[in-house]
Formats: sequence, structure tokens, C-alpha cells
Amino acid sequence: MSTSIHSKSIELAGMGETQENHVSKNRITDDVRMRGFKKRSTVVATIDWLDQQDIDLPQQAVSLQQAMGRVLAQNVSSNFNIPGFTRSMMDGYAIIASDAQGSSSYNQLPLEVVGKSMPGKGTKVRVSSGTAVRIMTGAPLPDGADAVLPAENVEADESHIMVMESVAQGRNIGHIGEDISAGTTLLNKGRRLRPQDIGLLASIGEKEIAVFNRPRISIVVTGNEILPVGESPKDYQIINSNGPMLEALSIRDGGTVINSQIVPDNPELIRQAMHDDFDILLITGGTSVGEEDLAPLLLAESGHLAIHGVAMRPSRSTGMGSIGKKLVFLMPGNPVACLSAYDFFAGRFIRSITRHGKNWPYVSVHKKLKQKMVSMIGRTDYARVKIIEDHVEPVAISGAAILSSTTEADGFVIVPADSEGYAPETEVEVFLYDQYHN
Amino acid sequence: MSTSIHSKSIELAGMGETQENHVSKNRITDDVRMRGFKKRSTVVATIDWLDQQDIDLPQQAVSLQQAMGRVLAQNVSSNFNIPGFTRSMMDGYAIIASDAQGSSSYNQLPLEVVGKSMPGKGTKVRVSSGTAVRIMTGAPLPDGADAVLPAENVEADESHIMVMESVAQGRNIGHIGEDISAGTTLLNKGRRLRPQDIGLLASIGEKEIAVFNRPRISIVVTGNEILPVGESPKDYQIINSNGPMLEALSIRDGGTVINSQIVPDNPELIRQAMHDDFDILLITGGTSVGEEDLAPLLLAESGHLAIHGVAMRPSRSTGMGSIGKKLVFLMPGNPVACLSAYDFFAGRFIRSITRHGKNWPYVSVHKKLKQKMVSMIGRTDYARVKIIEDHVEPVAISGAAILSSTTEADGFVIVPADSEGYAPETEVEVFLYDQYHN
Repeated sequence: MSTSIHSKSIELAGMGETQENHVSKNRITDDVRMRGFKKRSTVVATIDWLDQQDIDLPQQAVSLQQAMGRVLAQNVSSNFNIPGFTRSMMDGYAIIASDAQGSSSYNQLPLEVVGKSMPGKGTKVRVSSGTAVRIMTGAPLPDGADAVLPAENVEADESHIMVMESVAQGRNIGHIGEDISAGTTLLNKGRRLRPQDIGLLASIGEKEIAVFNRPRISIVVTGNEILPVGESPKDYQIINSNGPMLEALSIRDGGTVINSQIVPDNPELIRQAMHDDFDILLITGGTSVGEEDLAPLLLAESGHLAIHGVAMRPSRSTGMGSIGKKLVFLMPGNPVACLSAYDFFAGRFIRSITRHGKNWPYVSVHKKLKQKMVSMIGRTDYARVKIIEDHVEPVAISGAAILSSTTEADGFVIVPADSEGYAPETEVEVFLYDQYHN
Repeated sequence: MSTSIHSKSIELAGMGETQENHVSKNRITDDVRMRGFKKRSTVVATIDWLDQQDIDLPQQAVSLQQAMGRVLAQNVSSNFNIPGFTRSMMDGYAIIASDAQGSSSYNQLPLEVVGKSMPGKGTKVRVSSGTAVRIMTGAPLPDGADAVLPAENVEADESHIMVMESVAQGRNIGHIGEDISAGTTLLNKGRRLRPQDIGLLASIGEKEIAVFNRPRISIVVTGNEILPVGESPKDYQIINSNGPMLEALSIRDGGTVINSQIVPDNPELIRQAMHDDFDILLITGGTSVGEEDLAPLLLAESGHLAIHGVAMRPSRSTGMGSIGKKLVFLMPGNPVACLSAYDFFAGRFIRSITRHGKNWPYVSVHKKLKQKMVSMIGRTDYARVKIIEDHVEPVAISGAAILSSTTEADGFVIVPADSEGYAPETEVEVFLYDQYHN
């Protein structure tokens, strides 16, 4: 299931391969701008690389209360049948079906009520021809009975019922193992657990269950100018907003944040942070190609810088690579670019290993553009938009530094690399920030 | 935004008003079956009642780490502008734009580099005609400069640059308050906080934020036969599966479970549980009209039983009402019926007050039916289905007692009250269990 939806999302988002034969003046300008990057990647090539990455997650036992949304690390089967006994599926009367043969409201047949079977308790009374046992939903079927007559189909007094409708043999009876058969695989390794799975696990006697650990995410915000949350900025300082945003995103997508820190623009300190213990590192700021952009150089030195520079706007300076078995994402310091780089790449990887689904986690709607939307061939654009009177309008001030453009926006539109943009009234897919899958 | 999507979901789910003029034989049979309920409701009427209910939630201050997904209890504005200074939007050179007028790669114009402005630090050097200051993204613009020339558009050595492209006055400069203007409302009371909102709150100096409390949910599973999670069933006992499932559902939808207990079929104990402190009570089992069905009688006695009996399958014995300002949901003990009653009603209410959106939280796809799907006029059906080779097939064993039908299913199809079912190849909307909004 998931796969088809995701492929669809990718298709709809138009993340098609760059059309190299559509080179335009814009493309050339863009090439000049990008020359600082040794080898820039398309969004599609970056995703191709990313989708080949994997990390090892150990498993842990968690209580059922903690298991919702986690990824099963084992196949699950039951040691016993459910139900473990033949049970009634209705409130009514356990009878021998042939006793009710031919009954109707015009031909009511009497049966003597000889006992009562309650859930969890049952009765030792045996049903013989001409008798019935009052029975509740879920209660064990008494010996001798072969059907349950719904309470609605009889007239009852203290000790007798008048049967007004026949019932087929075996009717309204739940058989041993009908819900869960001992030994059968019920849930497969790799499944993300749903609320009903938690119920199922409880019903087969589990109290704890083996799941894969959440990926351990370390967040490093670089910059001498960055202040911790809650402090007051002086002069040219700014408060760390990428860190808290990335924490929220990582947790939304099933990760666990083991560390979130601000590190000055100091190669030794950034190198240290790269050698911490984590599964995934999200490092923001200093990712471009200037002399102060340390992160790409340090990643190349400590491990493998696989991607640096992506043909997209914003998030052009995004990079990624690995250090041993750990994955490292270099994310722009501008908050919009940071959000876009997260959702395109880091989030995709995290959502994939936590089985949230690779692609956009946002619900999308299709609406028409109010005005044209300009992009360039060879570049993928992430445009924040509002939906106003059922039309899509770009958010007015939308530079990569304008975080409020992402809080003001209802969502975003992707303009794929093979498009120069869209004319007014083009129907576009809007991914809604306030409606996300989980 | 949300509203239109939700209305759409309802429409797609076909929860249209029951067509009273389409009475059929099936309808009459169903009426007979339902006669135990004094006044059964349609799903639509039940939802109408539910959508008029409200509960008061106090507010609390939470840290930004705790604020993701919570509902804002206040309007938010900033005490200061962001940026608080004129800044560069690019890595490059702060210059006087007129100095670059007429430059090109064939007419490179020289400027003397007289300083450097770094983020958080800036420079006291003033840019005068013929000079430039090296500047980084986010760094303060030096006095005298009126544009930033991107680094890509110059050839640079230690002390000079050769300008190869002109730049318009004001270009690549971010102005004071351009992102966030002091005093302007940025986020409105009632908004469910997104990751980027957390970033925004951090950037304006917030460390804690006032949000509405999560609704406090009490879960009561009734039945003498019910064992706690982790115990081994003997004889006719069964393990509590509705409790763990409802906990997972309640938390998924933004509630907090303050209490989850098993209570025997004892009127005094159930009455006590109804008088506990909670915002919402989910009580399962004993909700029908038999002599052992205590919950409806006790709710009517303790408060108001507004709905009892809903024309749907499963979950026919669902009830709801209130005790003072507290809302009470009576949910069938059969696990499939319990899940369906939760998602139709209790979940809808919880999702509404936590701003998750009223309607189905599941992502849906449209696919064709492999075989016919039978229902009856006047009754809303919740049918578990699998998607096999792009066609929709009902799950084989699908009684209300078969919890595994909901774990085996990919999702469900709603057959609305005005439909007798669907012919093969009819396109239906499947709500996917593994893809839910949050």
C-alpha cells in the first residue's frame, strides 16, 4: 500500500529527472551562481542517493503503552486461540437449531429456559431438545447447543421463550481460533504498529514487545551569533530557531533527539560534534562554499561528503554524507531553507526508517493558481503559498531567511526541475502544513 | 483550510442524511432488530449532536519542546523586530550599488576590500565609493553600503574585487522587521502548533508558551471476564484489548489518558467510575439493551443519555451523553465495534477539540471494488477491506468480534445510510489505517 501512495506523491510533486535538453538562459545564470559547488546534484539524484542509505537500528522491548507507532522488530503470533472456546456473537438464547425450525410470529414455538451463560463464566447446564440457555455476547456456548437465537427474535418470560424466527445451525456462534489461530503470523516484522495492533498484542497476552529503536538524532546549530532559546538578543545576535524546529520535525517523524546544541564557528568544536554518538546528525549553518563554511570540509575530512549543492531553491547549499555508519545532513542556516532541506531529505530518510513513509508527510489538495509562479529549468522550487478563496497565492515575502513565510503559509507548492513555472489558473498540488500523516 | 477539507471528507465518506423514502425489506428487518433501543439515531444525527458539544479546557504553560502539536491558548506577537538590523541575504560584498553600474565580465570594475562583516559581529568600517566590505549571509550591513553583490559575481583577491555584474540598490538586503514586525500578531489563539511555529516562537524569545490542556480521558473497560494486560487467560477469560487500543487512539488524537481500568459488571463500581474526575469517559462493554447492560442506565441516572443506539454496523449499541460538563461515550465491547465507535464519534470529538480536525484522520485512496458490498438502507456500514492488485476486497471474516479483521485490513470503506451497497467495479474511498493525519 504505502509504496503506491508514495510513488504517486513523487509523481504528483513532479520530481521528474532534470530535462538536460531544455537548457535556457535561466539555466545558464543558475550554473554561474552554482559554480562554487564542485558538483551539484539534482533533487532527484539526491533522493536516489538517499534512498540507498540505511542505518542499523538495534531493537528494544517496550511496554504496549509505548508501542504505538513503533516498528515491530519481530514477527508476532499467538500461543493460544482466540476465542479459546465456542462463544456467542449475540445476546440471545443458545438452542438446538432444529427446535426453531418452522417458527414465525404466526407460529411461535415454546422452549424452556434452563440456565444462563455469562461472559467469563458459562454454565454447566446442557441444552437438550425443547430447552434454551439465556446467553450473552462473548459468553461460552453451552454443551448441546448449536445456534444462538437473537434476543430480538423471541418473546420471553422468566422461564420460557416463544421462538418467532428460525435460525440456521451454527448461526451467531464464534468458533475456536476464529479471530486468532495459535501459531499463525499475525503481524510482520517491520510493521508500524497501529492502535488496533496494540489491542491485538494485548489480547494474545503480550505486555511488552520488541521494536526497533528510534533513530537517535543529534542536532547541531552552528554560528557565533546564535543565542540559546529564551535569551534576549543584543546587537547582532539571533536566537536559535532552527534547533527547536528541527527537534519538533525529528520527533514528528519518529526520531528521538539525543542532543541539540549550539556550536560556534570553530572547526575543532564542529569536528568534535561530528564524532559524537548518534545515528543521524542534522547540522545547520556554514554549509555553503565560503571561507567560513566549515561543515562540508569537516564532513569530507571525517567521513564522506556524498552530496554538496543541490539544484533547488531554497536549500541550494544542502549537503549530505556519512561518517562510518552514521548519516550526516548539512542544512542551510536560513530557516526556510532549513525546513525545506529537512522535509526533502533528512525527514524523508527518518520517515523511511521509522516506516512513516518516505515522501511528503503532508496531506495535499489540488487548487488553481491565482497568479503565475516563476521558476527555472534545472532547479526545483519549494514555494510557500496561501489558499485564498479557493485559489493558490504565493506568500508575499518569501526569501529563505523569512521564517514567518512558513508560518503564514497554508502550505507549499513544488515546481519541478523540468518546469519554468506555471501560468495563472494552472492546477497545482498544495502540501498542507497543518495536515500531516504520522 | 481545515474546514473545507473536513467537509470534503464527510461528503466523500457519504455520510449523507438517511433517505427515509428508500425504505426496503432490509430496513424493516433492521427496525425489528433495533427495537430494543427506545430511539435510535442515524450516524448523521449523532454527529450533529456531537458537533454541538464542547468542554472547557484550562490552559497551561509548556516549554517549546513540549509545544509541538499543542493548541495555542493566546495570540502571539513579538516584542522586537526580526531582523533587528539591516542584514545581508547572501555571501558577498557590501557596496554602493552605483559603483557597480555598467560592469560586466568584459568591463570588470575594481573595488578595494576595506573590511569584513560577520554574522553576530558586523564591522565599524564604513563603505564609501570605490570600496567594498566582505559580508556573510545574515551579517549586518555596514554603514554606507546600499546593496550586496553576490560572491559569485566577482573575481576576488586578498584586498580587491573585480565586479562583473551590476546590482540594483537595495538588492540582497534584508530590512529591519522584514521577517517579524514587533507587535504584529504572528500566531492566533486556537492554532495547533507546527514545527516552524516552534522555530518562530524561539526566534521571538519565547521559552514557554500557553497552550490548552490536553483533554483528560478516562477509559473504563467493563466485564467480569476481562483480565489485565500481560496475564494468562483461564477458562472463559479474555484479556483487555479495548483498553490498550483506546489508549493508543486517544493519545494519537491529542488526548491524555489519566486513567485506564477494568471494572466488573457491578453498578456501584461503574457508577463510581462515572463520577471520577475526567473530561471525557470512554466506557466499553454493557452498552446494549440487555439486563446486564448497565452503562446506559447508569449514565441516564447520573447525567444525560443523549444518544443510545445508532443505525450502523458495527457499533449499533453506541451511546453518548454528558455528566455535568463531562462527556461520556458508551462503546461496544466487541473490539471492531469499539474501534469504529471511537473513530466515528469519540475520536471525532477529541480530534476536534485538539484541532486535529473532526473527520477521519486517515488518508484515503479511491479504488474499484473486486466484488459487491452489501449493506441496507438506513444503516451506515464500516467495512474492513484489503487492497489486492489495486482492487478493494472485503476482509473475509469480519464480525464485530474479530479484532484481527482490523489488523489484517488495509483500511475501511463506509457505506452510507442511503445506499444498499455497491456493485462490483464501483469506485469506493478506502481510508487507510496505516496513513493517518496528526
